[in-house]
Amino acid sequence: MRLALFNQGRLGVVDGDTIIDVTDQVGSPSTGAAGALHHYIETLAEGTGPRLVPSRGRRVPLSEVTLEAPLPRPGKIIGAPVNYLDHKAEMDYPTSIADLGVFLKANSSVIGPGQAIVLPYSDKRTDQEGELGVVIGRTASRVSAEDALDHVFGYTCLLDITVRSGEDRSTRKSFDTFTPIGPWVVTTDGIPDPGRLDLRCDVAGETRQRTNTADLIFGVRELIAYASSVMTLYPGDVIATGTPAGVGPLAHGDRVVVEIERIGRLEVSVDGSQATSYASRPGDRRS
Amino acid sequence: MRLALFNQGRLGVVDGDTIIDVTDQVGSPSTGAAGALHHYIETLAEGTGPRLVPSRGRRVPLSEVTLEAPLPRPGKIIGAPVNYLDHKAEMDYPTSIADLGVFLKANSSVIGPGQAIVLPYSDKRTDQEGELGVVIGRTASRVSAEDALDHVFGYTCLLDITVRSGEDRSTRKSFDTFTPIGPWVVTTDGIPDPGRLDLRCDVAGETRQRTNTADLIFGVRELIAYASSVMTLYPGDVIATGTPAGVGPLAHGDRVVVEIERIGRLEVSVDGSQATSYASRPGDRRS
Repeated sequence: MRLALFNQGRLGVVDGDTIIDVTDQVGSPSTGAAGALHHYIETLAEGTGPRLVPSRGRRVPLSEVTLEAPLPRPGKIIGAPVNYLDHKAEMDYPTSIADLGVFLKANSSVIGPGQAIVLPYSDKRTDQEGELGVVIGRTASRVSAEDALDHVFGYTCLLDITVRSGEDRSTRKSFDTFTPIGPWVVTTDGIPDPGRLDLRCDVAGETRQRTNTADLIFGVRELIAYASSVMTLYPGDVIATGTPAGVGPLAHGDRVVVEIERIGRLEVSVDGSQATSYASRPGDRRS
Repeated sequence: MRLALFNQGRLGVVDGDTIIDVTDQVGSPSTGAAGALHHYIETLAEGTGPRLVPSRGRRVPLSEVTLEAPLPRPGKIIGAPVNYLDHKAEMDYPTSIADLGVFLKANSSVIGPGQAIVLPYSDKRTDQEGELGVVIGRTASRVSAEDALDHVFGYTCLLDITVRSGEDRSTRKSFDTFTPIGPWVVTTDGIPDPGRLDLRCDVAGETRQRTNTADLIFGVRELIAYASSVMTLYPGDVIATGTPAGVGPLAHGDRVVVEIERIGRLEVSVDGSQATSYASRPGDRRS
């Protein structure tokens, strides 16, 4: 099942080129900043979730609605810093995620399909990183790799946008608009094995990244096991699984596309019109 | 006003050695994982918040209730890595927060007064860092230092517990139980100037940290200005303002106390009974 948010927070099931409005089946659409899908995932985890019956919903052509980020404000967004062997070589990192740990991105950095990544600096590189996103479905604390996939709700396309500068990763990856996700979340019944998905990321019409999730150093199972050994994962949390080789700078006017097999195609734009010099940021104080 | 959560999510106003139950004035206590105070802060920011009338609430001796973390699941927790000159010297960091950026802690790491910090590793140092916590009250994006305090709801005592190992700060600081906050949040009317507060942190009966927030490299105003230039701050977000010199290892059975002038005294314990060897963590794979 493909679950999307559209038209200011409505919940829909995507079926081919139509979307079926099931908002009324999960309660009111005014479910706060976290949104209706997050609310639905939480109720499912609590065992009080309704069974969605798409045949009872109103069907609308997908082309007539505006899709939004399926999870506009996840509980947390956890990232894997260097999780493909080719990107590891590219970045010249000496160690793997086991030593690097996971990082966190601000949950305020999410945008959805069709929205714009806003570049903060005119004189610092901001790169695209195309990734498989994992949406947690059940509370996970110290789960084993074997049991990990039982705690997944679904998968989505994700961009982990990153400034190449000296600050903590959390800063460089948490500017508003730096985590595009979508176009929807595909539930696990549609993806029994997240470890065999082709992934492609294009910028300005050129393919920069092409991989298969089989090449992840830590697969989805192991990532969940590791992350959940540090912090409890809650329904609606998102894991960015890491990016393959081919990261590169974004420029004003670029279109960025991430396409993942069995999931779909997320497209966003790039807005550099508000970029300012790095030195003009608040707090650039030498001491 | 001192606002606390107690007895499984009830909202109270602390007055001397009593607490006044005002839960019914802000709606149902079942406001989800974020809790009743977070809900109240959000409604205030939206302009729909009720005016609390403590005289209408039931008064109970503070000694008869169990206080809880006032914000059990903040929207996000932002930290300042090296923000006191003496701690900067202690850690031998070459740069200041302007170059280091802010980091994020998982919002799943919060505990409240009387709860236990759980040490993850038997063979890695886990340190206490006593800090002033700032609770955001109004959405803040690119605010100036001059306007910053208008976006604050209040202040609390906070411990930023940290493993000394090689992983990303977000990992080392985000283990469950690693962000004790409380015992309550003091609203800004009680603290017109957060830049002149004595702060003390004791471990096992010995004072390890003693400072005044006047010694912050970046004061609260400047921290909010910097952080809000990177990411939008939302009502209920928490900023850990940084720690002074005197961080040190915690051991099973320690009592940790942070006391801040005009705010109060937060006390938690340390549980090392579940600690395991660093090498046994999931994902320790050499490559």
